[in-house]
Amino acid sequence: MNIRTDLALECRELAPTDCYGIECEELSFDKIKITRIAVVDRRGEEALGKPIGNYVTIEVPPFTKDTPLSDAAQQAVTVELTRMLPKEGTILVAGLGNADITPDALGPKAAEKIFATRHISSTLAENLGLGKLRAVSVITPGVLGKTGMETVEIIQGAVSRIHPAAVIVIDAMASRRLSRLGCTVQLADTGIVPGSGVGNARKEINQKTLGVPVVSLGVPTVVDAVTLATDLTAKHPDEVQEDMHTHGQRMVVTPREIDTVITNAGNLVSLAVNCAMHPHLSPELLTLLV
Amino acid sequence: MNIRTDLALECRELAPTDCYGIECEELSFDKIKITRIAVVDRRGEEALGKPIGNYVTIEVPPFTKDTPLSDAAQQAVTVELTRMLPKEGTILVAGLGNADITPDALGPKAAEKIFATRHISSTLAENLGLGKLRAVSVITPGVLGKTGMETVEIIQGAVSRIHPAAVIVIDAMASRRLSRLGCTVQLADTGIVPGSGVGNARKEINQKTLGVPVVSLGVPTVVDAVTLATDLTAKHPDEVQEDMHTHGQRMVVTPREIDTVITNAGNLVSLAVNCAMHPHLSPELLTLLV
Amino acid sequence: MNIRTDLALECRELAPTDCYGIECEELSFDKIKITRIAVVDRRGEEALGKPIGNYVTIEVPPFTKDTPLSDAAQQAVTVELTRMLPKEGTILVAGLGNADITPDALGPKAAEKIFATRHISSTLAENLGLGKLRAVSVITPGVLGKTGMETVEIIQGAVSRIHPAAVIVIDAMASRRLSRLGCTVQLADTGIVPGSGVGNARKEINQKTLGVPVVSLGVPTVVDAVTLATDLTAKHPDEVQEDMHTHGQRMVVTPREIDTVITNAGNLVSLAVNCAMHPHLSPELLTLLV
Amino acid sequence: MNIRTDLALECRELAPTDCYGIECEELSFDKIKITRIAVVDRRGEEALGKPIGNYVTIEVPPFTKDTPLSDAAQQAVTVELTRMLPKEGTILVAGLGNADITPDALGPKAAEKIFATRHISSTLAENLGLGKLRAVSVITPGVLGKTGMETVEIIQGAVSRIHPAAVIVIDAMASRRLSRLGCTVQLADTGIVPGSGVGNARKEINQKTLGVPVVSLGVPTVVDAVTLATDLTAKHPDEVQEDMHTHGQRMVVTPREIDTVITNAGNLVSLAVNCAMHPHLSPELLTLLV
Repeated sequence: MNIRTDLALECRELAPTDCYGIECEELSFDKIKITRIAVVDRRGEEALGKPIGNYVTIEVPPFTKDTPLSDAAQQAVTVELTRMLPKEGTILVAGLGNADITPDALGPKAAEKIFATRHISSTLAENLGLGKLRAVSVITPGVLGKTGMETVEIIQGAVSRIHPAAVIVIDAMASRRLSRLGCTVQLADTGIVPGSGVGNARKEINQKTLGVPVVSLGVPTVVDAVTLATDLTAKHPDEVQEDMHTHGQRMVVTPREIDTVITNAGNLVSLAVNCAMHPHLSPELLTLLV
Repeated sequence: MNIRTDLALECRELAPTDCYGIECEELSFDKIKITRIAVVDRRGEEALGKPIGNYVTIEVPPFTKDTPLSDAAQQAVTVELTRMLPKEGTILVAGLGNADITPDALGPKAAEKIFATRHISSTLAENLGLGKLRAVSVITPGVLGKTGMETVEIIQGAVSRIHPAAVIVIDAMASRRLSRLGCTVQLADTGIVPGSGVGNARKEINQKTLGVPVVSLGVPTVVDAVTLATDLTAKHPDEVQEDMHTHGQRMVVTPREIDTVITNAGNLVSLAVNCAMHPHLSPELLTLLV
Repeated sequence: MNIRTDLALECRELAPTDCYGIECEELSFDKIKITRIAVVDRRGEEALGKPIGNYVTIEVPPFTKDTPLSDAAQQAVTVELTRMLPKEGTILVAGLGNADITPDALGPKAAEKIFATRHISSTLAENLGLGKLRAVSVITPGVLGKTGMETVEIIQGAVSRIHPAAVIVIDAMASRRLSRLGCTVQLADTGIVPGSGVGNARKEINQKTLGVPVVSLGVPTVVDAVTLATDLTAKHPDEVQEDMHTHGQRMVVTPREIDTVITNAGNLVSLAVNCAMHPHLSPELLTLLV
Repeated sequence: MNIRTDLALECRELAPTDCYGIECEELSFDKIKITRIAVVDRRGEEALGKPIGNYVTIEVPPFTKDTPLSDAAQQAVTVELTRMLPKEGTILVAGLGNADITPDALGPKAAEKIFATRHISSTLAENLGLGKLRAVSVITPGVLGKTGMETVEIIQGAVSRIHPAAVIVIDAMASRRLSRLGCTVQLADTGIVPGSGVGNARKEINQKTLGVPVVSLGVPTVVDAVTLATDLTAKHPDEVQEDMHTHGQRMVVTPREIDTVITNAGNLVSLAVNCAMHPHLSPELLTLLV
C-alpha cells in the first residue's frame, strides 16, 4: 500500500474487504456522517496499516465557504471527543505544525482559540459567572527546524509539569481524496506522528511516549501530489514520484482558498474542544471568551 | 487547446511547431535561461492563443529554498524589464491579487517592497545621497470581491491622477508544468487579465484600457489540478473536471512551502523593479530603502 | 491653543464658554452619550479651530476588553452616520492610515470588514436572499511613503471612476484625554486631514477636493505625549516638546493592549457602516457576510 | 522608590550616590556606551532594588529608523552576552511575551530568528560547511492567559528534557526615560520576572527556579504612563495613578512607530545571540540561515 493518507476511513477502503480485526460502525444525522473504526488486534493493524485503537471520521458540510459554522458539525466533534477523553482531570491541548506554512498551520490556528483555564481559580470563575471550569492548558510546540526540539520532547516537558489526565493533539493531515478536503475531521486515541500528513514524519506522540492518554484531532488539508498522480494513472507511486517533485520540493494539492479552509477548520476544532471541556457553557459564550 | 497556462513558453510547446507569426530567441548564462517570444501577427495569435506582443520567460535557480537571492536572476529580470519600459517618465506599479489567499498574494507582497519615490523631491533625494530618482508610485488594488471595483477601474483612477509613462502590473500566474513553479518569471508587454492565473478572470488591463503601455511581471505559483490531471491521464479536461473539484472549490497544485515561494518571488520581482527604476543605486542599498 | 486633539468635543472644552457660532446638543441612552456640535459660522470656526460643519461624538462603553460589541454602540453610530449620508446612491468607503503601524491601522482594519457590494448584481443579491443592496465600494489607499501618492489623489482616482454619492473616510485620531481612548467615535461632515491624528498631516480630503460629500468616522487611539505633558505640567507645548521626543520619533500614549483596541474599534465602525448601508439586514447576517 | 523601570542603570540614578554594595564600570567606543553594574551584597540590593548579580546596559544608535543594523551594536551585545554565558553546552533560548500585543512582542519576534541547531547532527553541519555548531534550542512559551501555564513552568519542562548549560530569556522591558526607548539593551545574570516590564508580573525565572544559569536580554519598549506623569509632576505615583488609567487599562508611552522598533530590536537581539553561539560564522551567513 503506497497511497498516502492519514484517514483510517481511506485505509479501510484500501484494505481487503474481508479482513479480520477491524470493526466498523456508521451513523448519519442532519448532514453529518460518522464512521467509527476500531482496530482490535494485530490482524487489523496489518490490514489497515494503523495501530490498535479507535478512529472516528466525521464528515461535515464543507467549511471552505464563508458560511456560518454548522452547529451539528461542532456538536458531532464535541460528542465524539467527549467519548474518547477521561471525564475528569486537567487536559493539555497541543497545536502541532508550522504556523508559517499555510497548509500545515491548523494546529497553531486552533490553539489560538482554545480557552485556557488552568490558571483561573474556582473563585474567579464563579465570580465571572462561568461556574466550574475544567482545567485546560494549551501549548504550541512549533516544529523541529525552528526549535531544535522534537515536538514530543516539548509536550513531554509540559506533561512533566502539569500532569494532565490526557493530551489532545491537533494537526493537519493528508487525505487520499480531494473530496475529503475541508469537510472531514478525524479523531483517534492512538496518538499521532506529527508532520506525517505533510511529508515530514517525526517521533510519535502517544500514550507510550507521554505516559497519559493521547487523543488526536485532525483535518485533511492536502492531498499529496504523488498520491493524486498514482490514483489518476494507476501507476506505482515510484513511477510518478519524480514528475511530482520540483527542485526537491514536495507538491501538494489544496483548495485554492486554503487560507479560509484552515481558518474555518481551526474554528470548528477549537470550539468543539472548548465545548467538550465546558459542556455547561454555550458555544456562543465560549466563542466570546477566546 | 484546453490546458491552463499563463506562460507563453508553454503555449508555444502546445502549438504546432511549424506555425507562422511567432518568433523565438533563446539565450543562457550562469544558471539563467531567457526565452523571448514575439507574436507578430494574427496567425501567431491564433497558434499561441495570446495577443500580439512580446513575451519573455526567464528561468532561474529555484527561489523555493532559504538561499540568498541569485544576483544573476535579479539582473536578468531587471535587464528584460528595462528593455520593455519607456526610458523616462513616472511609472505606476500595481500589485494584483488577494493578499489573503497565499498562492494569489504575489502582487501585494511584491508591492510592499517597491520603492515609492514620486513624493520625494529632487532636493531631498540629493540630500539623502540618492541622486536623481525616477518617479515611482505603487498601488495594491485588491480584488473585486473586497472592493466592489474591477482592478482595472482602480488602476484607471490612479492613472488619471498621475499620468504615468507606463504601468507595471505584478501578478501570480498558473503554469502547466510543476517544474516551472518557483523558478520562472514572465514579462510581457501585452497586459494581463487579472485572476486568470487562479481561475477567476476579470476585465483586462492593457494599453487599450489604461491608455499607456502596460508591462506585466508574473511568477507561476500553481498548476491547476485539472491541468495536471489532463496531462497525467491524456483525457479531455471536461472528463477530469468533476474529480478535480470539491464543493465547488478549485483545486490547485503548489509546493507545500508555498508561503516561502511567494515571499522569495516577491523579493526577486520587487528588487528587479527597483533596480530597473534606479540603475545608479546598488541592489543592497535599494533593499535597505524599502 | 496648542493642545493636540482631533475631537470637536475637546476643542469645545478648550474654547471660551461664551463664544458665538457654535451650537450643541447632548443626548444619552443606555450607556451611550451623544454630543452634536455644529460650527455654524466663521466665529465658531475661530473659537473651535475646526471648519464649519457638523461634528458628532459618541461615547460608548470601552471596546478595549474582550467583551461582546455593544448593540447600543453600534446602533448609535449607525443612526448618526445615516443622518449624515445621502439617502441613495453609491457610497465609497476609504480606510485611511498605515496598516503596519498599530495605532494608525484603524482604517485598513475597518476596511477589511466593509461589505463591498457594488459588483453584486441585483439579480444575484435577490437570489442570495439579500434583497436590494446599496452599492458600496471599498479602498485602502495606503500612505504617501509607501505609494508615492497623496491619499486624496488615490481617492480622487476612485471617485472619478465610480461617481459615488458620498465618500466615508475612516481614520485613527488623537485625543487630548486618555479617558477618551477606546470608547469614543467621532463623525463629521467636514472631511479630514489624514495623518493629523498621528502627527503627519497630509492634504485634506473633503467635498472641495473630492467634489462629493465626505463623512469622516474616527476613533481616538492615541494621546500625543506632548499633549499629555502639557496638560500635566501646565507648561507651553514648546517647553515640553523636546523631552517628549526621542531620536526624532514622536511619542504617543496608548493602552498597552492597543492591538485589541484597534481590532474592536474596527469591528464596531465597520459593522455600523454596513448596517447604515443595508438597514434591512441584521447585524448578525452582515457580520457573517464579511 | 515608586518609579517603574527594569533598567539597573536607571535604578542606580534613583539610588543615593554614596551607597555601598554596588560597583560600576563604563566604557564607550564608536557610538556605543556600555555600563556594567554589579550588585555585590545585600546593601546593594536594597539600594538598587535589584537582586545580587551583574547588569550590563548597552546604549546604541537608535534602531527605530529604517537604517541598517549597527555592526558595533550587534558586536557589543554579542561580546557582553558571551561574557555571561558558559563557554560550552546546550543553550535554551526562550522568547517571552505576548506576540499579539505589539509592545510586548519582542521575545516572540526575536525567537523567530534564533538559529535552532540542537537537531542538526555534526555530520550534517560539516557537510553544509557550517563547521561545529553549538547546540541551541528555542521556545516561545506564550503568556499565562493563553496557555494556562506560568512561563516558568513551560521553561522548566523544556529544561527537564534537554538539560541546557544555561537559559537565555528575551523580553520587552519598561524604562523610566523616553530617551532610552529603542536604543538600549540590558543583559543580566539574575533572571527575570516576565511581564514586569508591562505591568503584569508573573513568577520569577532564574537559576533558583530553573536550576541552571539564566541570562536575560531585554530592550525597553515602553515607559509606563504613571512613571512619566510622576516624573513630570513630581507627585507621588498614587496621585497620578488614576488619571493615567482608563477603564482599567494600563497606559504606556511608546514611539508611534512601535512596530518598527520591535522588529529592529528583535533583529539586533537575535543576531547577537546567533553570533555569540557560533562565533566562527559571519553575521551575514547567520542572517541567511534563519
